[in-house]
Amino acid sequence: MRAYDLIRKKRDGGSLSAEELQYLVWGATGGGIADEQLAAFLMAVFFRGMDAQELKAWLHAMLHSGRVLDLSAIPGRKVDKHSTGGVGDKISLPLAPLVAVCGVRVPMVSGRGLGHTGGTLDKLESIPGFTVDLSIARFAELVNSLGVCLIGQTGEIAPADRKLYALRDATATVESVPLIASSILSKKLAEGIDALVLDVKTGRGAFMKETAQARTLARTMVDLCRAMGRGCVALLTDMDAPLGHAVGNAVEVRESIEVLRGAGPPDVRELTLRLGVEMLIAGDAPGVGDDPLLARMRLETALADGQALKRFAQLIEAQGGDPAVVDDPSKLPQPKIVREVRADRSGLLTTLDAELVGLAAVELGAGRARKEDDVDHAAGLILHKRLGDEVREGDVIAELHAATESRLDAGELRLRSAARIGDAPPQRKPLVLERLA
Amino acid sequence: MRAYDLIRKKRDGGSLSAEELQYLVWGATGGGIADEQLAAFLMAVFFRGMDAQELKAWLHAMLHSGRVLDLSAIPGRKVDKHSTGGVGDKISLPLAPLVAVCGVRVPMVSGRGLGHTGGTLDKLESIPGFTVDLSIARFAELVNSLGVCLIGQTGEIAPADRKLYALRDATATVESVPLIASSILSKKLAEGIDALVLDVKTGRGAFMKETAQARTLARTMVDLCRAMGRGCVALLTDMDAPLGHAVGNAVEVRESIEVLRGAGPPDVRELTLRLGVEMLIAGDAPGVGDDPLLARMRLETALADGQALKRFAQLIEAQGGDPAVVDDPSKLPQPKIVREVRADRSGLLTTLDAELVGLAAVELGAGRARKEDDVDHAAGLILHKRLGDEVREGDVIAELHAATESRLDAGELRLRSAARIGDAPPQRKPLVLERLA
Repeated sequence: MRAYDLIRKKRDGGSLSAEELQYLVWGATGGGIADEQLAAFLMAVFFRGMDAQELKAWLHAMLHSGRVLDLSAIPGRKVDKHSTGGVGDKISLPLAPLVAVCGVRVPMVSGRGLGHTGGTLDKLESIPGFTVDLSIARFAELVNSLGVCLIGQTGEIAPADRKLYALRDATATVESVPLIASSILSKKLAEGIDALVLDVKTGRGAFMKETAQARTLARTMVDLCRAMGRGCVALLTDMDAPLGHAVGNAVEVRESIEVLRGAGPPDVRELTLRLGVEMLIAGDAPGVGDDPLLARMRLETALADGQALKRFAQLIEAQGGDPAVVDDPSKLPQPKIVREVRADRSGLLTTLDAELVGLAAVELGAGRARKEDDVDHAAGLILHKRLGDEVREGDVIAELHAATESRLDAGELRLRSAARIGDAPPQRKPLVLERLA
Repeated sequence: MRAYDLIRKKRDGGSLSAEELQYLVWGATGGGIADEQLAAFLMAVFFRGMDAQELKAWLHAMLHSGRVLDLSAIPGRKVDKHSTGGVGDKISLPLAPLVAVCGVRVPMVSGRGLGHTGGTLDKLESIPGFTVDLSIARFAELVNSLGVCLIGQTGEIAPADRKLYALRDATATVESVPLIASSILSKKLAEGIDALVLDVKTGRGAFMKETAQARTLARTMVDLCRAMGRGCVALLTDMDAPLGHAVGNAVEVRESIEVLRGAGPPDVRELTLRLGVEMLIAGDAPGVGDDPLLARMRLETALADGQALKRFAQLIEAQGGDPAVVDDPSKLPQPKIVREVRADRSGLLTTLDAELVGLAAVELGAGRARKEDDVDHAAGLILHKRLGDEVREGDVIAELHAATESRLDAGELRLRSAARIGDAPPQRKPLVLERLA
């Protein structure tokens, strides 16, 4: 078999066999196929796509390029959630301990911030002492004993995806539905889960800005995940404006703690509950069955009685962090400088562009301009006004946190471009646009 | 400027500016852009193409990635011919000295055999002592004094094409009209020519098997060459069956000498004359003007009176070879073993597939299975029967030349697959299908 012939076949619209796709994935992992050949193949896939059979075989090879966890010795169904990435999307933080309290085990391998979007790992690491670098054995142990553990992708998990993702990132071949779907699932299925709940974002702050595109991705992932013998449900959710008030790392942990206290911004709480319902049903949570109302009541109880917050504190402690942050969030990293951004006219907040708000947070230091950059855990922003709110001239729209004045300047510039004040009330989309099962 | 953004722009169907294309070509030449990014760009071009403005800017950058000869000090117009590659296509050998005799200077930079096709340089090097590695200065000197010189591509000429061609060859991005056109012209225009005559092949033995494809390539090259301020004419010619009787290296030199003696196979002689007419007119040959009949008479005279053969001998001597081969072709490398392939039934030779005949020659040792391979100058084949000929059982169809029995076995197998004997006379195409100016 020669990589050349396989590139050519895909280029000309052919369908590759499982053996051919495995050859490519192994060649990518082991270095037997040159980067330029892989890049050409990826670009051909961008144009030609992959059919359902190819995609399943490709994913199978990607998944088995590394270690696939076997959590079958741990009783009960294991369920994870994955979001395609948004701004202010801290849902994993309250959701994982909440679902664990309700009796579904959550083995969660998360990612870092990318572009304008934040990353669960960066947020968790803003908790003093918290480590996401646990061994696979310790990960499994915590999933068993605590019902939840959140770690980063290790070198053992889907090394083919690591290699191919870096290439896609350099060669403008990220935006391909089959490549996105197989990349996500190769990491998620390696966790040893029985089912996956997907939060596929659409709108200004999502990678897939068009709803039709996002729907195609969601449909592809649900079908693919099921073809691999795992349960899967996807919610298509709105990401035109940021989720909640906080965008950054420590600020988002603080907001997550509010949600776990039964408070927090309504949209963050609601999406946590909606995704939680799906996870409880997918995970056969005790006393829930297939009833979304029962599931929701169970979740609301766990928020109200403090069990979910307690589990989050236990999780923090088990992963080396200081659990006192849940009672005293001032123990989280505090910003060096704070600046208030005020409205220069009165009216309604007609636009709050999530992508630009995300980029503002990056400018402040909360994200990465390049992969090698460090993030400033104390940096970020808190929105005092949200989409559709009435604003009077001089009102604080947002407070910005950063380490330097120049970062504040850059962040303010971006934030001002994100927020437009006008007169006509903005069109609001529902939080959850569709459910795909 | 970032390669990533340019790949993405082309991927999405955008048109790149001259500066953007130059950035890519310079990055390819200097190594500033990674191979995987170049490969992804080339695949995007495969799918999206290039418009006329892009193509001109791309070619300009490719051409000026290396040295562009200035032959303006040499009087008269300089004209070259380029063939897109065929089987038995030795036309450059008789054509170059013939046209030089008629008063048009021919600075010819040629290539090596590729896949099933032969290469002018390999053929010339079968002449004992002949070297194609001359300095640019010596090349110019011979073009001036002798009117003709044939060399190989040096590292100084279009280094961007060298780099990009190697990448295209590894990544299945060779078959793209804009990339083929710019690759060919970047080398040919570097020769300092005033006009170029193209022999664009179509049929079983051509790279462009479909006439429509070949016509598109011819049209693209003619327009592009003219946009660069040089004259250009293309002949679209048939390459279903091999040209002439001889396929290989020494055997093709021998056949070329026959043509220069005024004899040789009618198709080789005719195509030499047809291309020669175009070169004389494009080169303002003395006493020819725009009259194809006058041009043809001039060429026929130079063949008949021995001037063309004499010029070929002078060329050989000037390039270090033994000029005695023109009078005594037995001084050319002789095959170790010869095998006759005989017809296993009577009938008409209804198919003589040029690509398979070319591959038979490769099996015999005349070509290269891989770029690194050496060619056996003595290897090749001589067709005793040609397309449409009547054949009786036991007649010799071809004689095979090789160094070993196993090569003869492999060559015979291929040749037998190329030649089919049937009853219905084959459809014959004209030698020259179209002329594009």
